[in-house]
Amino acid sequence: MKRLLITGAAGGLGSVMRTRLAHMADTIRLSDQGDMGAPGPNEEIMPCDLGDKEAVENIVAGCDGIVHFGGKSVEGTWDVIRNANIDGVFNLYEAARKHGHPRIVFASSNHAIGFYRQDQRIDNTVPPRPDGLYGVSKVFGEAIASAYHDKFGQETAIVRIGSCFPAPKNHRMLSTWLSQDDFVRLIERVFDVPRLGCPVIYGASANSSSFWDNGQVDWLGWQPQDNAESFRAELDRTQEKPGRDDPNAVYQGGGFTVEPIHES
Amino acid sequence: MKRLLITGAAGGLGSVMRTRLAHMADTIRLSDQGDMGAPGPNEEIMPCDLGDKEAVENIVAGCDGIVHFGGKSVEGTWDVIRNANIDGVFNLYEAARKHGHPRIVFASSNHAIGFYRQDQRIDNTVPPRPDGLYGVSKVFGEAIASAYHDKFGQETAIVRIGSCFPAPKNHRMLSTWLSQDDFVRLIERVFDVPRLGCPVIYGASANSSSFWDNGQVDWLGWQPQDNAESFRAELDRTQEKPGRDDPNAVYQGGGFTVEPIHES
Amino acid sequence: MKRLLITGAAGGLGSVMRTRLAHMADTIRLSDQGDMGAPGPNEEIMPCDLGDKEAVENIVAGCDGIVHFGGKSVEGTWDVIRNANIDGVFNLYEAARKHGHPRIVFASSNHAIGFYRQDQRIDNTVPPRPDGLYGVSKVFGEAIASAYHDKFGQETAIVRIGSCFPAPKNHRMLSTWLSQDDFVRLIERVFDVPRLGCPVIYGASANSSSFWDNGQVDWLGWQPQDNAESFRAELDRTQEKPGRDDPNAVYQGGGFTVEPIHES
Amino acid sequence: MKRLLITGAAGGLGSVMRTRLAHMADTIRLSDQGDMGAPGPNEEIMPCDLGDKEAVENIVAGCDGIVHFGGKSVEGTWDVIRNANIDGVFNLYEAARKHGHPRIVFASSNHAIGFYRQDQRIDNTVPPRPDGLYGVSKVFGEAIASAYHDKFGQETAIVRIGSCFPAPKNHRMLSTWLSQDDFVRLIERVFDVPRLGCPVIYGASANSSSFWDNGQVDWLGWQPQDNAESFRAELDRTQEKPGRDDPNAVYQGGGFTVEPIHES
Amino acid sequence: MKRLLITGAAGGLGSVMRTRLAHMADTIRLSDQGDMGAPGPNEEIMPCDLGDKEAVENIVAGCDGIVHFGGKSVEGTWDVIRNANIDGVFNLYEAARKHGHPRIVFASSNHAIGFYRQDQRIDNTVPPRPDGLYGVSKVFGEAIASAYHDKFGQETAIVRIGSCFPAPKNHRMLSTWLSQDDFVRLIERVFDVPRLGCPVIYGASANSSSFWDNGQVDWLGWQPQDNAESFRAELDRTQEKPGRDDPNAVYQGGGFTVEPIHES
Amino acid sequence: MKRLLITGAAGGLGSVMRTRLAHMADTIRLSDQGDMGAPGPNEEIMPCDLGDKEAVENIVAGCDGIVHFGGKSVEGTWDVIRNANIDGVFNLYEAARKHGHPRIVFASSNHAIGFYRQDQRIDNTVPPRPDGLYGVSKVFGEAIASAYHDKFGQETAIVRIGSCFPAPKNHRMLSTWLSQDDFVRLIERVFDVPRLGCPVIYGASANSSSFWDNGQVDWLGWQPQDNAESFRAELDRTQEKPGRDDPNAVYQGGGFTVEPIHES
Repeated sequence: MKRLLITGAAGGLGSVMRTRLAHMADTIRLSDQGDMGAPGPNEEIMPCDLGDKEAVENIVAGCDGIVHFGGKSVEGTWDVIRNANIDGVFNLYEAARKHGHPRIVFASSNHAIGFYRQDQRIDNTVPPRPDGLYGVSKVFGEAIASAYHDKFGQETAIVRIGSCFPAPKNHRMLSTWLSQDDFVRLIERVFDVPRLGCPVIYGASANSSSFWDNGQVDWLGWQPQDNAESFRAELDRTQEKPGRDDPNAVYQGGGFTVEPIHES
Repeated sequence: MKRLLITGAAGGLGSVMRTRLAHMADTIRLSDQGDMGAPGPNEEIMPCDLGDKEAVENIVAGCDGIVHFGGKSVEGTWDVIRNANIDGVFNLYEAARKHGHPRIVFASSNHAIGFYRQDQRIDNTVPPRPDGLYGVSKVFGEAIASAYHDKFGQETAIVRIGSCFPAPKNHRMLSTWLSQDDFVRLIERVFDVPRLGCPVIYGASANSSSFWDNGQVDWLGWQPQDNAESFRAELDRTQEKPGRDDPNAVYQGGGFTVEPIHES
Repeated sequence: MKRLLITGAAGGLGSVMRTRLAHMADTIRLSDQGDMGAPGPNEEIMPCDLGDKEAVENIVAGCDGIVHFGGKSVEGTWDVIRNANIDGVFNLYEAARKHGHPRIVFASSNHAIGFYRQDQRIDNTVPPRPDGLYGVSKVFGEAIASAYHDKFGQETAIVRIGSCFPAPKNHRMLSTWLSQDDFVRLIERVFDVPRLGCPVIYGASANSSSFWDNGQVDWLGWQPQDNAESFRAELDRTQEKPGRDDPNAVYQGGGFTVEPIHES
Repeated sequence: MKRLLITGAAGGLGSVMRTRLAHMADTIRLSDQGDMGAPGPNEEIMPCDLGDKEAVENIVAGCDGIVHFGGKSVEGTWDVIRNANIDGVFNLYEAARKHGHPRIVFASSNHAIGFYRQDQRIDNTVPPRPDGLYGVSKVFGEAIASAYHDKFGQETAIVRIGSCFPAPKNHRMLSTWLSQDDFVRLIERVFDVPRLGCPVIYGASANSSSFWDNGQVDWLGWQPQDNAESFRAELDRTQEKPGRDDPNAVYQGGGFTVEPIHES
Repeated sequence: MKRLLITGAAGGLGSVMRTRLAHMADTIRLSDQGDMGAPGPNEEIMPCDLGDKEAVENIVAGCDGIVHFGGKSVEGTWDVIRNANIDGVFNLYEAARKHGHPRIVFASSNHAIGFYRQDQRIDNTVPPRPDGLYGVSKVFGEAIASAYHDKFGQETAIVRIGSCFPAPKNHRMLSTWLSQDDFVRLIERVFDVPRLGCPVIYGASANSSSFWDNGQVDWLGWQPQDNAESFRAELDRTQEKPGRDDPNAVYQGGGFTVEPIHES
Repeated sequence: MKRLLITGAAGGLGSVMRTRLAHMADTIRLSDQGDMGAPGPNEEIMPCDLGDKEAVENIVAGCDGIVHFGGKSVEGTWDVIRNANIDGVFNLYEAARKHGHPRIVFASSNHAIGFYRQDQRIDNTVPPRPDGLYGVSKVFGEAIASAYHDKFGQETAIVRIGSCFPAPKNHRMLSTWLSQDDFVRLIERVFDVPRLGCPVIYGASANSSSFWDNGQVDWLGWQPQDNAESFRAELDRTQEKPGRDDPNAVYQGGGFTVEPIHES
């Protein structure tokens, strides 16, 4: 690619992927409303509030691909969520519609299906079951991606990210962990396949205790290589396991299921 | 019920249902931002913009049940859709959460699944496939209903209304028509069953050419009595049938699938 | 048939069916450990404790068909349930194996699947989910019927009876009711089809609010004619509806799900 | 339609449908290699051997629709089956490809799935399970229809006809019977819907003892009105029922499953 | 755990697992009605007839976990099976209910589903299909486990053990073999997960020729490491393969399907 | 085996397998209508036109197993396809019926299901969806195999071969490639299992980007070892990827879906 846009480049995931994806395009355009530091060799920096329609058009113009990490990535007040994840996603897809339909990786979340139980195995054909306003905003984003695909041919990889950190932080993440390496491999495949369509993909490594079945997207050729299991002994040593009625042991979305509505 | 709130009471559906549902509560509270005329015997009139959070709390307070027809019911600009169908629905559920969880009939739409093809039979377990911004806003509303049910126990009947008019207006509606009588019967059942949960129900009469399978909600005890088939001869006489590649002959959502984004 | 055995003939269902099935055989052999009164014109009376293996062989010998209503039909102590429904069923199938494999109608029960929720529609391929010792004993009986069919060719209609009374006694039975007429029609079909096999059949009338899907046994040609719906208005008038968390509104098995183990 | 071609017009089904479908087109073109008698008012007669490619092109040219009853409709020698049902169907679809893709009703048969058991309920998504050379030739025809649809847009209603006679002739036909009235209604719907595609439809009336689930083609709007059940009493009186191991009681295809290969 | 009860400790499986599970609790309590030899360092020996309700309560009291290998593990007379596997399991669950619901590993068996064919792949949602009295008794035990879970929250891992021996003994076991190592790993996971529920798990190693799909219990995090395939060459060399109609080549339950009822 | 027949032995696949399968029988009988060269040590050469019924009987007589690679393996004129793949397969199964039912490996093709999309994962229970006359002829062959199995007990492994070449030739084959080693391993398993039946098996290696799910035939014990993924980098270097609307990127059957009917 000539130019790949990474939104949310100042966030946890974005600041890592900014370098991990550097090989994928001549220029990596970085965008965020937070401080992104100085641009690296093949980087360009374009600050942007996703709720600002014109600003979003500007960052999208001229890009061949988009990795959309931008937006609020945990629960927040309605105003924040709506601005970043509702208006922001609408703005992004409108911009893409007007600027040549660059392929998009949309960072959806397991919280779009967080109220499924952990003892249930789900694939990408189940109806959404969001676990809060954040999860609802991700269902909204998936719906926008779907409509823009069916109406306009816009291609998106909807990645329901589990937990993308250097290592699982708690026992639930033994099931949901996505290694950064596996995520990079996934993004490479998304931009490599000739035809992407608009598939829903569970963003998780090859964890022994997975809740999710990615069989429907085998054709993508993504085979995660890591397994959270290798962290179990260390976790067992350093952390108490959740009790049997702890939401972290019951629901796929874990603690999000019991977060209150953030009223301010 | 003591008091039933009907939102969108000045709209097409609301203005009919206002009288058809009169028997269901001591007081029918009507709300809309348009002109609702004079209150009938057991009616009370409370104008309200759904995008106004406080106003929505006011109309919800004191109600035992809500029939939510309010909001934009066709495609519109993003600002209109977001205000009425995104903010509006969020406001409604927040109000319900704070005021005793009155049971809700949520008027969702076939446009939440409008890109399924007409030769496909779907039930209520398929993932959404919205056919435009309006459809996306309905997916959002369904997601809010689902999250508030799983988190707070709020009960909602999510009714994916087909085409609720006195008679089918075109050939596609031979499949999607919902008679007003059948809709009244459905709303009666929703408020009658001891436990509702948060089911998705296709709002269509017992049409011979149905696309939709309501088998999963048999327990509700709703059996539609009407059948659009009785209007076919008349339609054939007065209208040209859509051609085989007309969206009205291809997609469940019909013409909505080819509506452009309304930019202003 | 020459001789049809009805067990449990002194029980609620048996004492009705004794006359309703009179046309089905030259001789109706009645058995129970309770008082069956005087034999009618084509009846013969043979008292029997189902736990007595030899006695069971005696009542089965010479019969062409068996309608097995015998055994405990509600919760009871383990000793009672085991004697009547565990040993009793084993004895019945052993007797049938030794006496020409008369076709059997086995009165199983909705309590074999009583912990499925009322808002779930199930067919006859779901795994059992019994709601107590009585339900477990019915799962046992179904398992015996299945094994004797696969091993020895013994044919059984496993009828998971809902609620077979003259009329529904409460709101849950609007879903589970089986009219006596429909049950007679079912038994007629069971003994009429050339090949029965060992199907599981939900014993319920054509109730609007059914939980159960009998589609898998259409080939039997049984089409129930009655609908509990016709009793709703009367029930609404005379009974309070169960609350939304009442087991009668939550589980298919209703109140059985909360019965304690009967220790003596 | 201007001109509807009916092949196999001298056969059992064709000779009846020739008059029953007379209202469907200005001209009914009849074709067969047998004697079709004199043409009626709006009929034209064109004899044809389906194995003769040019002859088939001639009968197809100028037609808006085709009802293809032609070919061998029971077991026969390979030479006969191949000529009529293999070459014949290939010739028909080639002719249709070259002459404007008239919509086709293809008389397939239950013998394409005849080895499914009678106690199994199947819909139109099961893989074929033919019960002999005749059934295999119907699988071939269905495959041609499918390929010509996917490649060239040719529309076909693949009708797996059960038993289309004035009345069921034996107990198996209580499940498979298709009344002539219901078949006419089906053909009317096929030529009426704007978009047909290439659906598989089980050609059976609304029989109580059906093996087949047409739910996937509800969108067609065909609702059969007749029920073989009304003939049961008469059949019971006049015919012996098949024994439990009689192929007529075991397999959907009945006696065809035990027919030998016809070697000459 | 402080104290883990292993029943059937004198049996084939129990006598091995007694040492293999020694690390799992401070004290391993062993029970059987046969001779268990002398207790090892952290063992305590408590003989018990499972049919003796009081005795069972005694062995269960004070335990944090139970591995229930006890009972008859092959076909036997009804009296033996009923005492050990029917009464015995009821007694065990009653004891667990009264003594703090220790988590249970219930040794169910492939013979609970033994009449499924070997060319059929099944998961844990299929209905039971037992292959004899032994299999029926395992269906009973699974039903008790299910009811005690739904009613009282008792957690059980229902393990449908294939063939747990040091090596596969015949060709069928190339599909059903469970290595002792893999079984130990499974039991470790069962007692490790915070929430177990009452899942059905096929107890088989990662055999190339498996009949069983454990996908539904991935969340457990058990990944068997062994594969019976490594024994194929040796088996081929030393044993004749079963013929194509040998029950060992047809049914998952193998030879059990043709065992007669043991009458004494 | 004493004698294994390989048809199509002069073709691409046959000429390789002729040596790769040499260990499987005392004598390898080779047949083709093309030049097969000189017989090797344990080979015998029998030229044959598959359309010649008697000739086919001759080559089949005396064989214990058949690997049927014979026939046209790409699109061709109807006369060629019908002679080799329709008559030829009929002749082969008739010969097998008359000569002891030697087990058959039938080389079917992905073109029997070539119109399924690449982003769809299919197993062996989907209905056929052939992509041309060649694909239709393979559906025919599968139907013959199925009928001869159900009627006469003839066993066949229906192998829907993807792309069996030394290496994938284009990007689509990264999904469909079957290594020769894996194919040999598959054929070994087919002739090794005691009971084969008539399964449909997707003939593809363990490719990361597979379209196909062979889970239903796990019992066969075939585990492919190769993965086309190892060729991706080389392919990327030497070939242009297909565009997103190229049939090679859309349909499982790739370019076959757009081949015209070969009229001469």
